[in-house]
Amino acid sequence: MTVRQFPTLKIHSPYQAARGGVGKSTLTANLAVALAAKGLRVGLLDADIYGPNIPGMLGLSGRPEIDEASGKIQPVAAHGLKAISMGLLLDPGTPVIWRGPMLAKMIHQFLFNVDWGQLDLLLLDLPPGTGDVQITLTQMAPLTGALIVTTPSAIALEDVRRGVEMFRQTEVPLIGLVENMSYFSCDKCGSAEAIFGEGGGETTARHLEIPYLGQVPLDPLIRLQADAGEPVVQAHPDAASGQALLRLAGDVGNYFQSA
Amino acid sequence: MTVRQFPTLKIHSPYQAARGGVGKSTLTANLAVALAAKGLRVGLLDADIYGPNIPGMLGLSGRPEIDEASGKIQPVAAHGLKAISMGLLLDPGTPVIWRGPMLAKMIHQFLFNVDWGQLDLLLLDLPPGTGDVQITLTQMAPLTGALIVTTPSAIALEDVRRGVEMFRQTEVPLIGLVENMSYFSCDKCGSAEAIFGEGGGETTARHLEIPYLGQVPLDPLIRLQADAGEPVVQAHPDAASGQALLRLAGDVGNYFQSA
Repeated sequence: MTVRQFPTLKIHSPYQAARGGVGKSTLTANLAVALAAKGLRVGLLDADIYGPNIPGMLGLSGRPEIDEASGKIQPVAAHGLKAISMGLLLDPGTPVIWRGPMLAKMIHQFLFNVDWGQLDLLLLDLPPGTGDVQITLTQMAPLTGALIVTTPSAIALEDVRRGVEMFRQTEVPLIGLVENMSYFSCDKCGSAEAIFGEGGGETTARHLEIPYLGQVPLDPLIRLQADAGEPVVQAHPDAASGQALLRLAGDVGNYFQSA
Repeated sequence: MTVRQFPTLKIHSPYQAARGGVGKSTLTANLAVALAAKGLRVGLLDADIYGPNIPGMLGLSGRPEIDEASGKIQPVAAHGLKAISMGLLLDPGTPVIWRGPMLAKMIHQFLFNVDWGQLDLLLLDLPPGTGDVQITLTQMAPLTGALIVTTPSAIALEDVRRGVEMFRQTEVPLIGLVENMSYFSCDKCGSAEAIFGEGGGETTARHLEIPYLGQVPLDPLIRLQADAGEPVVQAHPDAASGQALLRLAGDVGNYFQSA
């Protein structure tokens, strides 16, 4: 995640970056809802143009309206926040078969042609990789904080090192690293199983000299609630996973307040 | 996965496509090793330029050599196959901060400037999405079969529908859909837990009218062996996950023999 200051609007835009499938979008959706519940004015920009999952995870539907006078796109409001996503502009299942320059144009639209109004924080959900979307964002928007999400697997951590290095090269400050899918508690016997490995997140954070923001368990509730369109922090704030995500939202909130 | 015929070389190039984090690279590495063990001459092209995980999963190291006479890049040989990856050309942790046109150039190099020799099958490990790499490949190479990999989660299946539609639009035949991370068997009590949901892969395959190729369990052995650089089909062919992957390799092999 990253925070940025627009030249005129006062908008922070945190975003998350890592490899695919580590739960970036799920974490972003939960953080956005949790930060909005704290009273912050939160926007959520789904920058994953090819695989926009935010609408499903927040249960958003309907097409965003265009304001006739200003020509601006109206973000969709839900769960106390405003969101925009390629998924809201397309029929379900429609692929976006675009080369990079089109991606960059769409990101520009989402940043500057959406009627965000006054926001305290704009969260960006990034696609995997270090390509056109990332380059465009670092050039167009002074991002003020990236949150790195990973699983404990060594292969995932390879990609983390590359992501962190990209943010360093582009001078985006790092909020910290959170380890997702850290352990699974068996429904039957309660045994905690480290399916994707153990301790990799903390070791990597120390090695890369970025703050370690703890673990989020591999809890089927997180996935169930994402599939149902109501993030776990809202539906089950007392579950272990809900608690972990609320604690993370607290850390991210503090980062931006002290930044 | 997709098979293609080069104009002069007889190369089939299967590849996999889906969202990030569903285990595409792990499955591709296992399939490549299993198909090579059947006696096929297998090449593996890691087309994920931003997040090249194939070298780690196959334990590859060292830089590929360039043949002075022909100027061709020598692929790295291991586990009975030949492989090329951006990860072999860079120091670990170095990000590739490139826009789309550079990606397309690199894919072209990997296809046509690597000394693949005679191959029966070239497997392509694709990055997530429906962007530059996918467009470039469908334009440059007559791909002859795509294998769709997904988890059972509804959110992952959204991305599957988009991927399948892209392959249909670009006239790439679909080998079928395999559901990965289908269930986890608790180490302690043996209970099978459907962490990412149940039955979504089969339902989606039926709905999209593509062959359903079964399940691969969420087995920590798969991840451990990927982290260790020796795929599970080689290290533990008798494990439930090894068996599932070998069965999948059989299905994929049959597809190409009858194609």
